[in-house]
Amino acid sequence: MPLTPEQQAEVEAQRDERRETLRTTVPELEEILYQPLSVLDHGFVRVVDYMGDDAAVVQAARVSYGKGTKAVRQDEGLIRYLMRHRHTTPFEMCEIKYHVKLPIFVARQWIRHRTANVNEYSARYSILDKEFYIPAPQNLAAQSAVNRQGRGDVLEGEEAQRVLALLRDDSARCYDHYIEMLNEDEAGKVLDEERQGLTRELARMNLPLNVYTQWYWKTDLHNLLHFISLRADPHAQYEIRVYAEVLLETLRRWVPLTARAFEDYRMGGAHLSAKGLAVVQRMLAGEDVQQEDSGMSKREWRELMAALDRDD
Amino acid sequence: MPLTPEQQAEVEAQRDERRETLRTTVPELEEILYQPLSVLDHGFVRVVDYMGDDAAVVQAARVSYGKGTKAVRQDEGLIRYLMRHRHTTPFEMCEIKYHVKLPIFVARQWIRHRTANVNEYSARYSILDKEFYIPAPQNLAAQSAVNRQGRGDVLEGEEAQRVLALLRDDSARCYDHYIEMLNEDEAGKVLDEERQGLTRELARMNLPLNVYTQWYWKTDLHNLLHFISLRADPHAQYEIRVYAEVLLETLRRWVPLTARAFEDYRMGGAHLSAKGLAVVQRMLAGEDVQQEDSGMSKREWRELMAALDRDD
Amino acid sequence: MPLTPEQQAEVEAQRDERRETLRTTVPELEEILYQPLSVLDHGFVRVVDYMGDDAAVVQAARVSYGKGTKAVRQDEGLIRYLMRHRHTTPFEMCEIKYHVKLPIFVARQWIRHRTANVNEYSARYSILDKEFYIPAPQNLAAQSAVNRQGRGDVLEGEEAQRVLALLRDDSARCYDHYIEMLNEDEAGKVLDEERQGLTRELARMNLPLNVYTQWYWKTDLHNLLHFISLRADPHAQYEIRVYAEVLLETLRRWVPLTARAFEDYRMGGAHLSAKGLAVVQRMLAGEDVQQEDSGMSKREWRELMAALDRDD
Amino acid sequence: MPLTPEQQAEVEAQRDERRETLRTTVPELEEILYQPLSVLDHGFVRVVDYMGDDAAVVQAARVSYGKGTKAVRQDEGLIRYLMRHRHTTPFEMCEIKYHVKLPIFVARQWIRHRTANVNEYSARYSILDKEFYIPAPQNLAAQSAVNRQGRGDVLEGEEAQRVLALLRDDSARCYDHYIEMLNEDEAGKVLDEERQGLTRELARMNLPLNVYTQWYWKTDLHNLLHFISLRADPHAQYEIRVYAEVLLETLRRWVPLTARAFEDYRMGGAHLSAKGLAVVQRMLAGEDVQQEDSGMSKREWRELMAALDRDD
Repeated sequence: MPLTPEQQAEVEAQRDERRETLRTTVPELEEILYQPLSVLDHGFVRVVDYMGDDAAVVQAARVSYGKGTKAVRQDEGLIRYLMRHRHTTPFEMCEIKYHVKLPIFVARQWIRHRTANVNEYSARYSILDKEFYIPAPQNLAAQSAVNRQGRGDVLEGEEAQRVLALLRDDSARCYDHYIEMLNEDEAGKVLDEERQGLTRELARMNLPLNVYTQWYWKTDLHNLLHFISLRADPHAQYEIRVYAEVLLETLRRWVPLTARAFEDYRMGGAHLSAKGLAVVQRMLAGEDVQQEDSGMSKREWRELMAALDRDD
Repeated sequence: MPLTPEQQAEVEAQRDERRETLRTTVPELEEILYQPLSVLDHGFVRVVDYMGDDAAVVQAARVSYGKGTKAVRQDEGLIRYLMRHRHTTPFEMCEIKYHVKLPIFVARQWIRHRTANVNEYSARYSILDKEFYIPAPQNLAAQSAVNRQGRGDVLEGEEAQRVLALLRDDSARCYDHYIEMLNEDEAGKVLDEERQGLTRELARMNLPLNVYTQWYWKTDLHNLLHFISLRADPHAQYEIRVYAEVLLETLRRWVPLTARAFEDYRMGGAHLSAKGLAVVQRMLAGEDVQQEDSGMSKREWRELMAALDRDD
Repeated sequence: MPLTPEQQAEVEAQRDERRETLRTTVPELEEILYQPLSVLDHGFVRVVDYMGDDAAVVQAARVSYGKGTKAVRQDEGLIRYLMRHRHTTPFEMCEIKYHVKLPIFVARQWIRHRTANVNEYSARYSILDKEFYIPAPQNLAAQSAVNRQGRGDVLEGEEAQRVLALLRDDSARCYDHYIEMLNEDEAGKVLDEERQGLTRELARMNLPLNVYTQWYWKTDLHNLLHFISLRADPHAQYEIRVYAEVLLETLRRWVPLTARAFEDYRMGGAHLSAKGLAVVQRMLAGEDVQQEDSGMSKREWRELMAALDRDD
Repeated sequence: MPLTPEQQAEVEAQRDERRETLRTTVPELEEILYQPLSVLDHGFVRVVDYMGDDAAVVQAARVSYGKGTKAVRQDEGLIRYLMRHRHTTPFEMCEIKYHVKLPIFVARQWIRHRTANVNEYSARYSILDKEFYIPAPQNLAAQSAVNRQGRGDVLEGEEAQRVLALLRDDSARCYDHYIEMLNEDEAGKVLDEERQGLTRELARMNLPLNVYTQWYWKTDLHNLLHFISLRADPHAQYEIRVYAEVLLETLRRWVPLTARAFEDYRMGGAHLSAKGLAVVQRMLAGEDVQQEDSGMSKREWRELMAALDRDD
């Protein structure tokens, strides 16, 4: 349960205040506004504000005076056209803001997406909570034998037990020493009046990378799609992929037409190189093409056959 | 009057639909939502959407679960602190979207601000209206004799009449030839069935830089402040300054605490160099400092004395 | 001939000074350094500086202490891998700077690429030259009958003559009036001592969008590839496409391995949507798929068949 | 000593290859090219490439065909003018690339500067070295009693000993467990053939935030100045400030005129708010102004008096 009762009360207070607006609203997204959607063992994603909807994409593409919408079907056609031809600027006209709680090693991947606004909880000023990411047993993967950045089988038995024990013990010990060095407890109360306490900006460096941090993260729809396409991809690390999947759920509520076009064109599709396209054209013409006469390397050929769902 | 009756009807239709939201709202800004604020002879600025308010700045700075606000006075103190110490990221957490109609030569200055999202009306697809910026007589400035980028006295008499006539005639003639080359009237109706008509993407290049274009422009609060501080500055060209001043009015409605801090710290203040600061310190200590023993060039000295409001 | 003798002399003076450096150099690119490559009737592209080469991409991908290169073949494999999997950050580690002369309507498309650095010749300070883009007869295209943004046949006979005459006459007249309003000739000499002259920042607005401007434009390799992929595309307007093609030539000199991978994966390939990929898989399995049972719209189907080079 | 003998050999190999170029060179910067400049206990900054010099700033400001330089004195005047009036785009025309080794908690502050290019050593693919930041005793600061983000006195005696011991022991233990979980030693050799080893992307999360990472970091001169002005500031955390100070040294070698103007206008100066400016004007006019009649809060007044170097 990621929120404390006080935090939960703040969320509920926000959900209790209904206001009138002349702006576009998206009732399906308002249903979950402010509410934490759980991710990993202590993390969450909360939508805390948004601006625009599918019609705003259309409105911007047409630079119109009123609402973009003529008919939903026409809007969908235009949105699919924009997505297919990578006309990205109309998607930049919608904006969304999240409050995210996530382990620092995930935050370090996430922050590489530069076209976004971020305010992170500061461990220079404040004391971090005692919350660390410990993988569920089914996510305790071994190093892949064939792929330097991939995961292999799940660890089992004694090795798994040992790894979990090390992660738990080191996290707890490092945190206890963090508190000891600070000479303050989690609530900021001084522990030993005889000591001064190490400055917060230094003490934090004793915490491991699986400690949770949190931030406000705001981005436009185009960059959100880009984030999801990279991070909900099977090649992304599991621990950030689960966040991207929750973002995808919020996307479907917020801009359903855009989400559908995105899943068809960007998530589900495949990019063929000039060589790959030539191979497909030859195959469709009935030729029996082999890797050797394709002009492609073995690795490229293997990836193409996988995309085309063919036995190699 | 910048809008046609049809456009005005679309604006009014948008203002008629009130919806419920759980998001933050700013009633003072909603009062003018969608309505064109006139600028120059045919231009306008319309706020078409917004996200966040002063409290959202505070909320982001604190990375809090609920609303940022404790008390307005505390919020104002924090906002002033952020402004003073150039902690800019919390201001990035608010976003605003405008629909702007402006002459192309102004648009070319405006677009240099890169951290914004833009969708411009496309003269590749569509036919531009017959609307050109012709300065009011009091803005028909001569070249400054002392400043290569500045304006001097206002032109008068025959010279002024001649300039206005040239601007009006060239605009009208170029537009008529644009229509003739297109072989379509403003509404897209073919003029001469015997002719093919030049493609729109080429015909537009016969239009002068004072023709009006329009765009949707969306930016975050931090970058809006940056835009206003540069473009509402007395050194900015008059024709973009009047747009920046209208943006400043919308800023005051949207985020009054931020606007106040901004006007105090960024618009009204002065930046002293190390040398300038040393001069002020010596003067305050009672010394009679002259340019010659200030370490500053004559130009730098003149600018410092102007900032300090002292006779040179 | 785009440069004046004085400008040509400055270029040659730069090409005469050879210096020693410990940095990476690219002799094939140095061959054309500073030299104008002609584009359109008065435009050019000049490479004026660069940083990095193919090996710098490899070096950044490996975060190595020395040069990235092990063997050219290994480097090429890595660069192709990065390109295929859209690992874009190593390509950001190379930078190039151009001096470009181009018509303003082309500059307005170009500037939409925001991740670049630009310094444009200022018509607030300086007087523009009397140079306008007038299309060659074979580029005087009619509006496409089927595509609102496309070009159709080339105009011929009287209509073509009339269009060229209008473009030439309006350009010349607007320029002459610009000079008259300025009360200065091209070299800045006052014409009539009795008149004050309109300020430059206003007079320029009488010039049509086919007048030439110039700028320094600097970008990283990743964003250069993005620019070329969008602007050397057949859908791009001819007048910017010819600039993109010259940029592509400089790319091939600068980073030949990257250029080759780019042309294979990005320029020559095709992106299939999930639906499109499913169609290809069914066809490869021997099924006779029709648009009606493809789940695709007619337009999407037509575009897919075109990409696969099949009759519809 | 931050580099291994192998790494040192790679650096020396790069310094041995002299090449000819037509580009601008900066001999003072080439003197230290590729060489590690030590920072903290295991960190370094290495300049690995650069593009442009002071003259390139001038050249871009003038959009000239040849070298910007007329005379050094004129160039300096123009650079000071650009700096004073915040004309930032000409400074974007120079670019520099660094290889930096730094603790992760410093990297997390550094990465917040978004307008830069980064390639970081990947702990998903590779095994990190056993190197952790342990502060020198004189930098072991207590939390400030008056400033929530500041440092107070240096810890002494037993408390200091205890803190250093905790930091050292926790770093070492976490690293040993990292290796144990990986089931690989630092060189990638399998430790126990019976075990599978936890995947690298998970094992790394057991490392504390004081572990060293490294990256290639490339930025333009304008954004470098911005970075230095924020991070070499006395309010910045000591551990990033020492990096910013080394960047400042490289800046002085690279673009001495820009560095001088920057240190005068941006590092050494002070920004006065409208209220602060009014106070200074009244004081210079001989008035004895007090906080109570200044319109400023106590905190603002205190900061103003400090900037003016006056007793409060």
